[in-house]
Amino acid sequence: MDKKQLIDDLLAVRVKSPLVQNITNYVVMNNTANALLALGASPIMAHAKEEMVEMTSIVSALVLNIGTLSNEWVDSMILAGKTALKKGIPIVLDPVGAGATSYRTDTCLRLIKECKPSVIRGNGSEIMALVDSDIKTKGVDSSVSSSSALDSAKYLAKEACAVVVISGEIDYITDGEKVIEVRNGSTMMTKVTGMGCTATALVGAFLAVNSDTLTASANAMAIMGIAGEISATKSLGTGSMQVNFLDELYIISEKEINRYLR
Amino acid sequence: MDKKQLIDDLLAVRVKSPLVQNITNYVVMNNTANALLALGASPIMAHAKEEMVEMTSIVSALVLNIGTLSNEWVDSMILAGKTALKKGIPIVLDPVGAGATSYRTDTCLRLIKECKPSVIRGNGSEIMALVDSDIKTKGVDSSVSSSSALDSAKYLAKEACAVVVISGEIDYITDGEKVIEVRNGSTMMTKVTGMGCTATALVGAFLAVNSDTLTASANAMAIMGIAGEISATKSLGTGSMQVNFLDELYIISEKEINRYLR
Amino acid sequence: MDKKQLIDDLLAVRVKSPLVQNITNYVVMNNTANALLALGASPIMAHAKEEMVEMTSIVSALVLNIGTLSNEWVDSMILAGKTALKKGIPIVLDPVGAGATSYRTDTCLRLIKECKPSVIRGNGSEIMALVDSDIKTKGVDSSVSSSSALDSAKYLAKEACAVVVISGEIDYITDGEKVIEVRNGSTMMTKVTGMGCTATALVGAFLAVNSDTLTASANAMAIMGIAGEISATKSLGTGSMQVNFLDELYIISEKEINRYLR
Repeated sequence: MDKKQLIDDLLAVRVKSPLVQNITNYVVMNNTANALLALGASPIMAHAKEEMVEMTSIVSALVLNIGTLSNEWVDSMILAGKTALKKGIPIVLDPVGAGATSYRTDTCLRLIKECKPSVIRGNGSEIMALVDSDIKTKGVDSSVSSSSALDSAKYLAKEACAVVVISGEIDYITDGEKVIEVRNGSTMMTKVTGMGCTATALVGAFLAVNSDTLTASANAMAIMGIAGEISATKSLGTGSMQVNFLDELYIISEKEINRYLR
Repeated sequence: MDKKQLIDDLLAVRVKSPLVQNITNYVVMNNTANALLALGASPIMAHAKEEMVEMTSIVSALVLNIGTLSNEWVDSMILAGKTALKKGIPIVLDPVGAGATSYRTDTCLRLIKECKPSVIRGNGSEIMALVDSDIKTKGVDSSVSSSSALDSAKYLAKEACAVVVISGEIDYITDGEKVIEVRNGSTMMTKVTGMGCTATALVGAFLAVNSDTLTASANAMAIMGIAGEISATKSLGTGSMQVNFLDELYIISEKEINRYLR
Repeated sequence: MDKKQLIDDLLAVRVKSPLVQNITNYVVMNNTANALLALGASPIMAHAKEEMVEMTSIVSALVLNIGTLSNEWVDSMILAGKTALKKGIPIVLDPVGAGATSYRTDTCLRLIKECKPSVIRGNGSEIMALVDSDIKTKGVDSSVSSSSALDSAKYLAKEACAVVVISGEIDYITDGEKVIEVRNGSTMMTKVTGMGCTATALVGAFLAVNSDTLTASANAMAIMGIAGEISATKSLGTGSMQVNFLDELYIISEKEINRYLR
C-alpha cells in the first residue's frame, strides 16, 4: 500500500467533505451516517423515487446496500444507480446476505447488471454466492474465510468490470488481476452490527476523492481496519467498541496510519 | 431458577450461534442486532415478502415486534410466522403499544391467532390490553406494575397456549400455571429505548437452544436483568447505560450470574 | 432568556413526562427516542395511517421530520398533522434537506400549509430554501451561517404564523418580531448525525409543557446547547459525544443551567 496516497486521500475527504448518498438498510443507517461524518464526508440518506434523479445528480458517490431490501427500495436503488451511471458518479454495492435467499442474490445480480457499480464489497460467502448460485450463506455472516473466496472475487471483478473487496481476517481488494491485501482489523468487529456496511460507505467516500478505484477501495479498507484495530484494544465489549470506533475515525491521522498500517 | 441450566443455555447460545430472524421496529433494529451479537447469537433482519418463506426456513427462532407496524410489515410477519409455525420454529411476539390504539391490539390478537407464538413478552399494560380491550396504554410505556398484570398474564398464557412474560420491577414468566420471578434489573432500563424489545430478542436466542419454553424465557430475562443491573451501576446516564449494557452482555459469564442472580 | 422559566419547563417535562409522537426519519429514530427519554418525556414512534387519528389524539405534541420521506410517510404526516391541528396539539416541523430537492421543499411547504405547525426548526440553508426556492442546499448540512438566514426566518415566521428556529453557531428563535438568541453548543454537534432532529424533538417536549411557543422553543434550544457543550468537552470524538450528550440530557439540572447558560 502507498502510505502517502492513503494519507492524501484521508485529508482530501476531510477538506472536500464529499456528499455521499446512501440507500442502505434500516439497521445501520445511523452508524453509516455517523461513520461518514466522523471521517469528514457528508452523508445523505434518501430513497424516495420522487427525488432520486435530482438527489443523486448532486452527490459525489452512491452507496447501495440491500440489507433490509424490499421491492420499492430496490426500484429506488435502480433509479439512483442508473442516474449515477449516466453522470459518471461512482457506485459501491454491498450485497448483504447474498446467498441467504435467491431474492437477495438475484437483486444483487440485477443491480450489478443495470447500474455497473465501480466496487462490490462483501464478506467471503456473499462474494462467492454472486459467482456460484449453489453457495448458501448463513444469514448475513460469512461461513467461509476471505482467502477461500479470492478466486471468486477475481472472477466477479472481471465479469462485472468492478473492483471487488472481500472483508475478513485479511481484506482482499482486487480488480481481477492485481490484489491488494489489508491486514488490519480485529475479530471483535464481526460482533458489532453494520461494520461491513460501514466499510462499504467509507469506500464510497474515498471513491469521491480518488478516481483510482482499486487504490481508493484499499485505502478505505485500511482506514477501516486501523480504526477497528485501535478501538478493539480500548473496548471492554462491543458496546464501547462501537463508540470507540467512531472516535478513532474522527481522530485518525498520519500518526496512527504510520504506527498501525501493516 | 436453575442456575446451572441458565449457564448451560448461555454457553449454548455462544457455541451454536443460532440464527435469529427479527421483523421488528425501526427504532430498535440496531440495538436488537447488537444485543444478539453481543450475546453470541447471529441476528438477521429481513422483512420482504419475496424472501420470507426461504429466509424463515433457515432460522432457529423468529422475533415479531410491532413497534412501528404498518400493513405491509404485518403481512410479512404473518407470512414468516406461518412458515415458522409449520416448521416448528419458535416464535416470540412483542406487542409494543398494545392498548394504545385498536390497530395495535387487533394486530397482536391476529398474530397470536394465526402464528401461535411460543412466547409473548410485554410490559404490564400491554399484556393486560391483550386480555381486556378496555385497558388503555399510555403510548409504549407501562402504566401499571408488572404484578398487577400477573392474573392477565396467566389467563393469556392459557388462552394462547404460550408462555407470557411481563417485564417490570419484577419480571414474571408464566405458562398459566407455573410462575417464575426474575428480580434483577434497574429502573434506569426504562429510560433507554428498546430495552423491552431487546429482552424479546434475547428470549428468541434462548428458545433456539432450549426447547423448554418456560425455562428458556426465564433464563433470557435473567441475563437481561443481570446485564442491566450491572451496567446501570456503571453509568452516569442513559447514553452510557446503552453502551455498558452491550458490554455486559458480551462479557457476562458464570461469575456474574453466580454473583448477581437473586 | 428567563432562567427560572427554563428550569421550570425542564422540571415540568420530568414531572409530567408528556407523550411526544414522532413521525421522523429512519436514521435518527433511536437517538430521538433516547433523547426524549433522557430529558424525561415519553416518546412514541408510530406512522401507520390505520392508527394515526387514534394515536395523535392522545399525545401532547407532534414532531414531523422529513429526513427519509416517501409518499406514504408524508400521507401519514398530513393525517397526524391535521388531527393535531384540530385538537390543538402543538406541531414542530423539521424540514430536513429542504432545498436539496424540490420534493423536499414542496413537501415542507405543503405540511406548513395543511398542518400549520407551531414551530419550524431547521438549519440556515433549510430555512432560506422555504422562503426562496432558488436556494440550493448541499444535502442535509447547512451551507450558510445561521445569522445570514435570520431575515428569511422572520419572514417565514410571519408567513406561516409560526415560531422559526435556526440552528447554528448561534441559534435564533423568532416569531417574526422578537428574536431570542441561544449561544450555547459546540461545533462537534454538526459531526453527529441527527443532532438537529434531536433539537426538534426537544422543542416538541417543551411545547407540551409550556404554551408560550417562543419561550418553549428557546428553552429547548438552550437545554440542547448546554448538553451539547458540556458533552463535547468530555468527548474524544463523535462516538463518545453521542453517548455523553444523552448522559448530560439525563442529568442536566439547575446547576448546569446556572453555570453554562450564556
